[in-house]
Amino acid sequence: MRVSVPLRRAYKLINHGPTTLITSAHGDRRNVMTAAWVMAVDFDPPKIVAVIAADTFTRTLVEASGEFVVNVPTVRMIDAVFAAGQASGEDEDKFSVHALATSPATLVGAPLLDGCAAWLECRVVPEPHMQERYDLFVADVAAAWADDASFVDGVWRFPTDQDRTLHHLSSGVFVASGDIVKAKP
Amino acid sequence: MRVSVPLRRAYKLINHGPTTLITSAHGDRRNVMTAAWVMAVDFDPPKIVAVIAADTFTRTLVEASGEFVVNVPTVRMIDAVFAAGQASGEDEDKFSVHALATSPATLVGAPLLDGCAAWLECRVVPEPHMQERYDLFVADVAAAWADDASFVDGVWRFPTDQDRTLHHLSSGVFVASGDIVKAKP
Repeated sequence: MRVSVPLRRAYKLINHGPTTLITSAHGDRRNVMTAAWVMAVDFDPPKIVAVIAADTFTRTLVEASGEFVVNVPTVRMIDAVFAAGQASGEDEDKFSVHALATSPATLVGAPLLDGCAAWLECRVVPEPHMQERYDLFVADVAAAWADDASFVDGVWRFPTDQDRTLHHLSSGVFVASGDIVKAKP
Repeated sequence: MRVSVPLRRAYKLINHGPTTLITSAHGDRRNVMTAAWVMAVDFDPPKIVAVIAADTFTRTLVEASGEFVVNVPTVRMIDAVFAAGQASGEDEDKFSVHALATSPATLVGAPLLDGCAAWLECRVVPEPHMQERYDLFVADVAAAWADDASFVDGVWRFPTDQDRTLHHLSSGVFVASGDIVKAKP
């Protein structure tokens, strides 16, 4: 079940470096794009950065709307995650093509992708130089959500192998998140 | 054995989101700091970004030298990885305290940490606004290295559980890198 995550804990949803799906929407258009280059840059209030390349339809929608959602998919979704990074949403509705169902977000227009393990609703902090020079978007995390079977009391657990997060290497080869290991206190 | 990685493949060494150790040096001082917020932002020539907080000794050394090394540690090093994120190198030599042996890098003054799985020798691209506003450092990857038991023909493999990479959640709890999973072509 999707439950709200306190904003001070939002960074934990991507701190282990999962590959994400970025959803965006503007007017009557929407899109979903695979993005491995997403990370936290601040804890509380939480901020992230994401690389959104200049030649993508997602870039057009994010620049127009100032919003996007970072969705954290699982191994169960691996084929859609890889495929969503191959085609452009300008030519096809990738949600339909890959049978990706969505639910409305609460604070932004971009949708939440059903079946993911976590979601960050983001609002762009305008930084024209970073965007133009490095394709790098800074965003405030406005709301955060997690599947309460996978993220419990602020810590990730992965109930089955299919619930693990995906970490892209290249060309459709991913590392799944593995065992929890703890350092000596 | 540490072998050279072609620069066009350097991004693959951190694309799956491992927590890293950043080494730095200036004059007769050196330091090592745990850093989970490091990611690629360009392929070829490879560029990365890293968050280096304003109140750290690493920040002082990186600003003075314009250089650092991103080291990718393994589960075998978990206690040192966690501990290196807790104390400041201004007060103690963390290499000595945690028995971290080093080797010279080739193009930068910061050392390579022995026992890691990969290394990126980095030169800072001056971006004062990003550094001051977000503690975010852009860097060119000048040289890249990997342990040839763990990174073979441009793909990660983890020969034993102790050779897996670490992905920090919080408070010394990490996810180890898990199985390789492949999407349909």
